[in-house]
Amino acid sequence: MKKYTEMSKEELLHEKESLEEAYREYQKRGLSLNMARGKPSVEQLELSMPMLDVLHSQADLVCQDGSDCRNYGEPVGIPEARALMASMMEDDPENVFVFGNSSLNVMYDTVARAMLFGVCGSTPWCRLPEVKFLCPVPGYDRHFKITESFNIQMINIPMKEDGPDMDLVEKYVNNDPAVKGIWCVPKFANPTGTVYSDEVVSRFAHLTPAAEDFRIYWDNAYCVHYLYEDNQPQIPEILSECAAAGHPDMVYKFASTSKVTFAGSGISALASSKRNLDDIKRHLVVQTIGHDKMNQLRHARFLKDHDNVIRHMMKHAAILRPKFEALEKVLDDELISRGIGKFEKPLGGYFIAYEGPDNTAKAIVKAAKECGVVLTGAGAPFPYGKDPDDKWIRLAPSFPTLEDLKQAAAIFAVCARLVYAKQLLGE
Amino acid sequence: MKKYTEMSKEELLHEKESLEEAYREYQKRGLSLNMARGKPSVEQLELSMPMLDVLHSQADLVCQDGSDCRNYGEPVGIPEARALMASMMEDDPENVFVFGNSSLNVMYDTVARAMLFGVCGSTPWCRLPEVKFLCPVPGYDRHFKITESFNIQMINIPMKEDGPDMDLVEKYVNNDPAVKGIWCVPKFANPTGTVYSDEVVSRFAHLTPAAEDFRIYWDNAYCVHYLYEDNQPQIPEILSECAAAGHPDMVYKFASTSKVTFAGSGISALASSKRNLDDIKRHLVVQTIGHDKMNQLRHARFLKDHDNVIRHMMKHAAILRPKFEALEKVLDDELISRGIGKFEKPLGGYFIAYEGPDNTAKAIVKAAKECGVVLTGAGAPFPYGKDPDDKWIRLAPSFPTLEDLKQAAAIFAVCARLVYAKQLLGE
Repeated sequence: MKKYTEMSKEELLHEKESLEEAYREYQKRGLSLNMARGKPSVEQLELSMPMLDVLHSQADLVCQDGSDCRNYGEPVGIPEARALMASMMEDDPENVFVFGNSSLNVMYDTVARAMLFGVCGSTPWCRLPEVKFLCPVPGYDRHFKITESFNIQMINIPMKEDGPDMDLVEKYVNNDPAVKGIWCVPKFANPTGTVYSDEVVSRFAHLTPAAEDFRIYWDNAYCVHYLYEDNQPQIPEILSECAAAGHPDMVYKFASTSKVTFAGSGISALASSKRNLDDIKRHLVVQTIGHDKMNQLRHARFLKDHDNVIRHMMKHAAILRPKFEALEKVLDDELISRGIGKFEKPLGGYFIAYEGPDNTAKAIVKAAKECGVVLTGAGAPFPYGKDPDDKWIRLAPSFPTLEDLKQAAAIFAVCARLVYAKQLLGE
Repeated sequence: MKKYTEMSKEELLHEKESLEEAYREYQKRGLSLNMARGKPSVEQLELSMPMLDVLHSQADLVCQDGSDCRNYGEPVGIPEARALMASMMEDDPENVFVFGNSSLNVMYDTVARAMLFGVCGSTPWCRLPEVKFLCPVPGYDRHFKITESFNIQMINIPMKEDGPDMDLVEKYVNNDPAVKGIWCVPKFANPTGTVYSDEVVSRFAHLTPAAEDFRIYWDNAYCVHYLYEDNQPQIPEILSECAAAGHPDMVYKFASTSKVTFAGSGISALASSKRNLDDIKRHLVVQTIGHDKMNQLRHARFLKDHDNVIRHMMKHAAILRPKFEALEKVLDDELISRGIGKFEKPLGGYFIAYEGPDNTAKAIVKAAKECGVVLTGAGAPFPYGKDPDDKWIRLAPSFPTLEDLKQAAAIFAVCARLVYAKQLLGE
C-alpha cells in the first residue's frame, strides 16, 4: 500500500474524495457503535453466572475462620478471599486486605487517607504546600482524575516499550520530596498494553525516594488478563523486589476481579507491607463495618485458586481475542500499511492504543462520533485531559459484538485516513 | 422489694455476701456470653436467605433502566434500589443515592469529603482552625469514632426523653460557626431507644446555623426496626421539614438494610437535597466505579416496597421481642425494684440503655467480664469513651439465644447489685 507521505497532492486529493464518499455512506447508516470503555461483553459476564449459585444454606455461609459471613465481622477480608486474591497477586494472604467491589475506590481512599492523615505518620498531604504524582502517559484516565481531584500536581512520564522512562522517574523520585507517588499499571498497561520489563521493575524497587511517604501505586488491574494461552508474560513481584532492595514499605499493590467475574460486582484487594497495612487498618476500622463478605465468599468458592482463575480467564480470552485480532487487522491493513500511525499488539488487558500522526487525535474522535462511533475522548489518557501531541486514541474492543466491532474499526480507519489526508493537504 | 438506699448497713452486708456467693457460682460455670454488639442472630439472618435465589438468568440481571446490573454503570444506584430505599426513608427516589454495604462508610466518607473539599463550596474543614460536632449522649460509639478520627472537637448534648436537649443544640448551632454538624439517631436512638418528638424534629428543622456548611447527620438506622406490631412510633420526615422551614440543604439522612437483610451484606443509602446530592456526586464519580448493583437488585427484588419491608421486619420482631422482654424483666425484677438504676423500654431498635447509679458502670462491666459476660465497654456511648458520670451501660440482647440471654441478664443483675451494694458500703 502506498504511504500517504509518498503520495502526490493529486493522489491525496483523490484519496480524500473517495474517503469522504465512504464516510458519507457510513453516516447514512445512522449507526450507534461504541469502542470507548473497557467493559466486558454480555458473553463474558455469562461466564460467571454459576457464581450466583454457590451460596445456599446457613452451612455454606460459614467461612474458614468459623464466622458467619452474613453478619458483621472481619474488616480486612475473610481468609479464603485473602488467599484467593493473594494467589492472583502472587503475595502471601497476610499481606492482602480484601475490600468491596471497586479497586478504584480502594486507590481513591488510599490517596484520601494520605491527604488527611499522611502515610505511616508523615505530615498529612493537605498541610503541604505542594504534592506531586508522576503519571506515565498515556495512562489510565481515572487514576489521573483521582490525583486531579485532590489538587495533586501531575507530571507526565513518557511510556517506553518496556515501561515508564525510568531515568526520568528516578530523577523526580530521588530528588524531589514533593513527589509522593506514581501511578503504574505494570502489566498490559492501560491503554498501551505495555508489560514492564524485569529491569524496569527492578529500577522501581531500587528507587531511593526523597520523600519518606513516597509510594508506588501499583495497579495490577490486568494481572491474569491474558489474551493468549501460549504467551502469558510474567513480571517480577514488586513487593518482594522492594523488600529485597531494602524498601519494604514503598509499594501499594491493587487488583480486583472486576474483569474476572462481574465488572460492577467483583471484589478488590490491596497488598502491601505489614507496616502499611497496619497504618491503613487503623483508619479502616473507623471507616466501615467491613466489606461484603458474602460476595468475597462467593468469589472464593467460585474462583478457587490461581490455576482455576487462569482457566476461567482463558474463557474470557476466547471471547476477547477475535475482537482484538479483528481490530488489529483493520489497523494494520488500513492504517499502518499506509504509514498512518502505529500501535503495539497487546498480549492481554482491555485496550489497544493507537498512536496517530501528531495533531490528529481530536479530529479523528470527532469525525468518528459524527459517524456514529463513540471513542474514548482524545486526551483522556493524559493528566488534565491534555495530550501534548494530540495523537493518542484509546480503543476498547471488548464490549461490542464482533460484527459491530468490525464496522466500528472500519469507520475508525476511514476517519483516521481522512483526517491525515486533510492534514497533509494543509486543510 | 426493699430499696438498697433504705437498707441498714447490716442488711447491705448480708446482701453483699449472698451476691458474692452467687457471683462465685456463676464464675465457676466458665461461661462465654456476649451482650456487647447489636448483631442480628442467626435466626434473623435466616429470614433473608430467599434473597440469594432471586437472581438467576441474564434476563433477571437487567434493571428498570434497561442496564445490565453485572456490568459497570450507574454510580448513584439502580432505579429500583433508589425506590426501595426511598420508600423506607419516606423520600422521593430522586433524593436518594444508594451505596454499598455500610452506611457507616457513607457517613465517614461524607465527613471526609467535608474535611477535604468543604460542603457545597465552603472552606475545606481541614483548613479551619477548629471544627466542632454536637454529640447527643449517650449515643452511637462509631459516630463518635468518625469525628474523633478527624480531630473534630465533640461536644456532649444530653439526651432527654424526647430527643437531644434542643435548648443547648440551638445555642451552639445558631451561634458558633465552628459547629458543623450533629450526630442524630432520631428513631430508637442507639442506645437509649429514644424516639425524637415532633417538637424536637421541628426545632431541628428551624435551626438557623451560624455556619453555612452546618449539616444534621440524621442516621435513621432503625427507621423500620419495630419491636411491636401494634405500636410503631412515627417521626416527622426531616428533609421536608427542613425544606418547609427554608433550610432544604441542612440535612443528610442515612439508612441501610444491615438489620433488615444481612448485617454485613446489605445496601445503604443517603437522602438529601438536590444541591447536596450534586455536591456529593461530583466526588463520587471520581471515587468509585459505582457500588454493587447486583446486591442492590437482589434487595429490590426481595424486599419490594415499604409494606413488604414492614412485614419482613415483623418476623425480626418476633425473634427479637422475647429477648428484649426477657432482659427488661430481669432489669425490672432485680434492679429497678431495688431502686438500682433505671431504663426505658424501647419500642424498636437494638439496644437497652441501663442508667445505673453514678460511678458504677465501669465496675459493673469489669465484674461481668470476669464472670464470662462481655458487655459494651463503659463509656463507649460517649465521645472519647468518657461517660462523665460513669453510669451508662449499653445492653444488646439481639445476638445471644434466649437461654444465653437470660443467663447473661441474670449475671448482669448480680454484678450491678454487687457493685452498688459495695458502693453504698463505702468499699
